Amino acid sequence: MEVIDVLRMNGGIGDTSYANNSLVQQKVILMTRPITEAAITDLYCSLFPKSISIADLGCSSGPNTFLAVSELIKTVEKKRKILGQKSPEYHVYLNDLPSNDFNTIFKSVPRFQENLKLQMESEFGPCVFAGVPGSFYQRLFPAKSLHFVHSSYSLQWLSQVPELEEVNKGNIYMACSSPPSVIKAYIDQFEKDFSTFLSCRAEELVTGGRMVLTILGRKSEDPCSKDGCYIWDLLALALKQMISEGLIEEKKLDSFNIPQYTPSPAEVRSLVEMEGSFTVDRLEATEIHWNAHDSEYFEFDEFKDGGYNVAKCMRAVAEPLLVSHFGEGIIEEVFSRYKKILSDRMSKEKTQFINVIVSLAKRA
Amino acid sequence: MEVIDVLRMNGGIGDTSYANNSLVQQKVILMTRPITEAAITDLYCSLFPKSISIADLGCSSGPNTFLAVSELIKTVEKKRKILGQKSPEYHVYLNDLPSNDFNTIFKSVPRFQENLKLQMESEFGPCVFAGVPGSFYQRLFPAKSLHFVHSSYSLQWLSQVPELEEVNKGNIYMACSSPPSVIKAYIDQFEKDFSTFLSCRAEELVTGGRMVLTILGRKSEDPCSKDGCYIWDLLALALKQMISEGLIEEKKLDSFNIPQYTPSPAEVRSLVEMEGSFTVDRLEATEIHWNAHDSEYFEFDEFKDGGYNVAKCMRAVAEPLLVSHFGEGIIEEVFSRYKKILSDRMSKEKTQFINVIVSLAKRA
Repeated sequence: MEVIDVLRMNGGIGDTSYANNSLVQQKVILMTRPITEAAITDLYCSLFPKSISIADLGCSSGPNTFLAVSELIKTVEKKRKILGQKSPEYHVYLNDLPSNDFNTIFKSVPRFQENLKLQMESEFGPCVFAGVPGSFYQRLFPAKSLHFVHSSYSLQWLSQVPELEEVNKGNIYMACSSPPSVIKAYIDQFEKDFSTFLSCRAEELVTGGRMVLTILGRKSEDPCSKDGCYIWDLLALALKQMISEGLIEEKKLDSFNIPQYTPSPAEVRSLVEMEGSFTVDRLEATEIHWNAHDSEYFEFDEFKDGGYNVAKCMRAVAEPLLVSHFGEGIIEEVFSRYKKILSDRMSKEKTQFINVIVSLAKRA
Repeated sequence: MEVIDVLRMNGGIGDTSYANNSLVQQKVILMTRPITEAAITDLYCSLFPKSISIADLGCSSGPNTFLAVSELIKTVEKKRKILGQKSPEYHVYLNDLPSNDFNTIFKSVPRFQENLKLQMESEFGPCVFAGVPGSFYQRLFPAKSLHFVHSSYSLQWLSQVPELEEVNKGNIYMACSSPPSVIKAYIDQFEKDFSTFLSCRAEELVTGGRMVLTILGRKSEDPCSKDGCYIWDLLALALKQMISEGLIEEKKLDSFNIPQYTPSPAEVRSLVEMEGSFTVDRLEATEIHWNAHDSEYFEFDEFKDGGYNVAKCMRAVAEPLLVSHFGEGIIEEVFSRYKKILSDRMSKEKTQFINVIVSLAKRA
């Protein structure tokens, strides 16, 4: 299914805000396609499973999860036809936190199944779906039941805000001006979470099973480099403007920290080797511009305003965190200021996200 | 977990309408407990699986699915402690149509998991959940992946309204006055659907896997006996009153038929034997009064009005069907009349549902 079809399927084209929120992630899925294709082809050709279990961890409720899944299935179908094999059964597990909107995904499942069937041109499947509510920092699946794990733009989220010994004054994330103990707490939390993730998946994957993980990360080895932190620094700037105008209490900001960590490729490799259940097949860092919109799909005027797009995209991510800490009242004002700050910086600098993509194979 | 806890957990006690809708089904789960316990104990003691996969088919969005699941898990835990075995992993699959409200169930999962852990008093699990959107008249799970299938008050629902050659004039279901071709179409549809259900589950269950199915049924061998049809006859009566007053068009009623079939134990046995994948371990028919409310849990005055309770219960089931055929406009009036008719009949006659309960084992 083409990107545009997947978006249409979920009403994404009509609902521009929706398409907007998911477009960076969608592009990332397409950018990582060669790595994903190679991994699932390897898996298929080494195990020839009659039934392939695929999990998308941190699926959210948008169309991107269907895009990722359809890419995987199409790759296997192409290969099995070349090899003259019968189509395997596909079992797709979509995971996110219990508060995720699974109803919206589930309602799209029958149409996705139908469309996929139409495109396959020959007998295929069955292809069935399940939703798995829960944190991926815990066990989610039966032991040795999964063949392939996909996760895109989810593993940078920590299981919790790190426990800080010192106040991260004036910041909402790791920044150059954060105390060293704050940086260390963030690093420790990521190490603990990512190792737990690897151990849980190691129990759930069959031997030879594969994972392709795309994590919002950084190229630099400096944990508070601009790569991962700049987008949050600018949100902090908007909040600090509001403090100076008396719209937010200063101590409110001091206790607000974003539970995210953007690792470097070397950190990812080191944690994978330390945990020991997986071998690293490929590890890459790629760049994507903060404003991933281009005229290929969208011709709405509003998309030409990069600040608008990125603020909207970040709002989908940050609004629940901000609301639970500061309340509903400040939201419109924060994002209006954030948009202006983003527009200004994007017009003056090269602003980009770094994706760390790692392809792993489960050891015997 | 006690019934009352499960209801509380989901806000059922506060929300009387919710508790009301699910109480008949909840009682049925408790009535079938001895059969369910025997089946899962047999399964556990013959396979000693390290990981037990349990599916509840037609789970709906209420607390009853958690009640059914907790009964099963508690039974296994009791047995494995007596035998000095380690607690198995529990993998629970909750299935219903894609339009079901899975979000509500999923939000209750963490609390259910916690409560269960507290009650177990010793190491148990992990116990993880997945939601499976789709019709159980199709494949839903990987081949040979399930150990236990539970389904309560769902299999009487046909996959579609039977294709009728003649108009089922003046009726909305099989009735004494229905043409023989209508009765035959209903029987044929049930035979086709139930056989498909058995074949799909036969592929999904491991050898020795078990199913306990509770189906709204009848004791009589006459398919249009009062057992299964009377509750719909009375709804037809309410609709016909409205036709006579010009509130509904007569031809609108002629094209409305309920996609339900209430089989006898003998029909169920015959179809299981014909399909051939399962042996019948137990087969029973039990009775439950239309108004299953008693003062044990509820002391609201409204529960003393049987007509009110049953109309409310049937409304949860019939409203979507009526709305899609007749539109929203008639609903309040239909159910107001239905309530009065039900109250009248329940005060004069013994009114009861028949449950056909069958316990099956997958052949080698």
